[in-house]
Amino acid sequence: MKDATLKQIATQLGVSITTVSKALKNYPDVSAKTKKTIVDLAKKLNYTPNSFAVNLRTKESTTIGVIVPTIDYNFFSKVLEGILAEAQKRKYLVIILRSNEKLDIEKKQIELLLNKRVDGILISLSNETGDFGHIKNIINNKTPLVLFDKIAKLINCSKVTINDRKASYDAVNYLIKKGHKKIAHFRGSYMPQNSIDRFLGYKKALEDNNIIYNPSLVYVCDNNTDFEDGYKNAENAVAEHPDLDAIFAVTDLVAVGIIKYLNDINIKMPEQIAVFGFCNSFMSEIITPKLTTIDQPGFEIGNRAAAILFDEIDLERKDKPVIFQSIELETSIIERGSA
Amino acid sequence: MKDATLKQIATQLGVSITTVSKALKNYPDVSAKTKKTIVDLAKKLNYTPNSFAVNLRTKESTTIGVIVPTIDYNFFSKVLEGILAEAQKRKYLVIILRSNEKLDIEKKQIELLLNKRVDGILISLSNETGDFGHIKNIINNKTPLVLFDKIAKLINCSKVTINDRKASYDAVNYLIKKGHKKIAHFRGSYMPQNSIDRFLGYKKALEDNNIIYNPSLVYVCDNNTDFEDGYKNAENAVAEHPDLDAIFAVTDLVAVGIIKYLNDINIKMPEQIAVFGFCNSFMSEIITPKLTTIDQPGFEIGNRAAAILFDEIDLERKDKPVIFQSIELETSIIERGSA
Repeated sequence: MKDATLKQIATQLGVSITTVSKALKNYPDVSAKTKKTIVDLAKKLNYTPNSFAVNLRTKESTTIGVIVPTIDYNFFSKVLEGILAEAQKRKYLVIILRSNEKLDIEKKQIELLLNKRVDGILISLSNETGDFGHIKNIINNKTPLVLFDKIAKLINCSKVTINDRKASYDAVNYLIKKGHKKIAHFRGSYMPQNSIDRFLGYKKALEDNNIIYNPSLVYVCDNNTDFEDGYKNAENAVAEHPDLDAIFAVTDLVAVGIIKYLNDINIKMPEQIAVFGFCNSFMSEIITPKLTTIDQPGFEIGNRAAAILFDEIDLERKDKPVIFQSIELETSIIERGSA
Repeated sequence: MKDATLKQIATQLGVSITTVSKALKNYPDVSAKTKKTIVDLAKKLNYTPNSFAVNLRTKESTTIGVIVPTIDYNFFSKVLEGILAEAQKRKYLVIILRSNEKLDIEKKQIELLLNKRVDGILISLSNETGDFGHIKNIINNKTPLVLFDKIAKLINCSKVTINDRKASYDAVNYLIKKGHKKIAHFRGSYMPQNSIDRFLGYKKALEDNNIIYNPSLVYVCDNNTDFEDGYKNAENAVAEHPDLDAIFAVTDLVAVGIIKYLNDINIKMPEQIAVFGFCNSFMSEIITPKLTTIDQPGFEIGNRAAAILFDEIDLERKDKPVIFQSIELETSIIERGSA
């Protein structure tokens, strides 16, 4: 029954194809009775409008593409929930791809999405993304693009992030005000802007409080296995700095790895070493001690990024000018037991 | 440059449209040199093949649709990772939708996917799904369908699950062998097959060990907020059954809610009350005490379901017969501190 067509329905009911088409689109100039007869038969025949033909005609696929580094983390699942909620409201379908933090996969996926002629693309860049030719292809191709979370300042498009530098500054400042002096930072890898900004916030907070920045207190978590990175680096940091009194982690997952190690060697938190996370994921509330962290609004980030993308798609369609926006969402400190 | 066409490329290079088309599809009957010239110009013009026209011609969109109840849980993120990994291998794109555990949303989403003429559909049913007309529409529409995790036995299609009844039997049997006698079950809602099967496994294990089944020890978690459901029901169970000595929870998230409550009132686990979960999610390892649980292979479930779907799509295309499979993946007990 897949190929039941408008024509079949028209023939069977003795009406014109135009009438069938209008009825199925719920146009007002077809009587309610006729409409019902047509819709009932279409349902009986399992008729579904040929969306490919519709696409070809209108050049609109009402589908967007999303590329995220991974979905197996609390943060990106929340972001995706936010994107899907907005897409459902605006009647868009969402193709989701994951780059696995790899540049070459990200490149291929952009090609796939452009070939598919999606209406727009949302991306959180991979940790390896240091040149942007493939991202600029999207713009050259006149496909609306919004970057979120892991963005690149050099790309000319709308962006949704938090103010990572400020959030990080607030976290470290909080630790200093609580009396901590030897504060390590377990940073993310060198490429992503948010990882750079969180590091710069850490450094600035030290400076503003007259604490000399010590590079040996900065540990890099760049194995894309935050939990193990946190655990391993905690082991190194404790061995290398016996007087360490606090750690500010780039993500909650890194912080959870740190807490696991400190629990294993019976170091009391926050009395001996305070631990501060970043994300406010579900697990930050269930671990012992509960994690003090920055609340990073994942759902909201995805939701806003999608809303901006849909608006830009609409403007493009109406040939109206698009003015790019950089949105920074508010964060706050969630005080719990670990710091 | 979006509208640069085969014709433009052909005219510019003085070759036929067929040659251009063949070159871009890497057909062997175009010389390597010509191919290179054509591909280079196509790249320069930002030419992307019009996938809509291709779709219309071949009736293949190389896109599948996935409907999951939610993505904001550890289990479904893993399932999606498994689906995306297989899709990437087979060069399919994946549209992801979430039903939010609502039947009416699930119905609408199936309609959207059929209208979009996706090549196949993967679904884990919502908790509300008790009649299956909308699911049968997919089959009537000759669109390959594979159900996973939350399935319905009445639907005639391939299915990927675990043996929920056996896994649950093993868990309760384990608790009984450890000496527990008054074992509560915090079950899922009444509709999903996996929730029914886990309950039946619990009941059977009691019977086989000559423990009389007591319906007042069964608590229903049906608010789609597993953590709160676990917390609240633990409060009730402890009040109603002072001699309670174990709880078998339908999911890890419910178990984490239970552990939170028992920690709050200083009940020792497993000495006073043992807690057993279901999933082996990341958090089961970071909570205190660590959660004894069933290892439910989420990635593998998604991966296998996707592989079967892609195989069935291939068979359909070749007009070969499809034999439906019901795959039950192995589970095992992960022993930790809580039981």
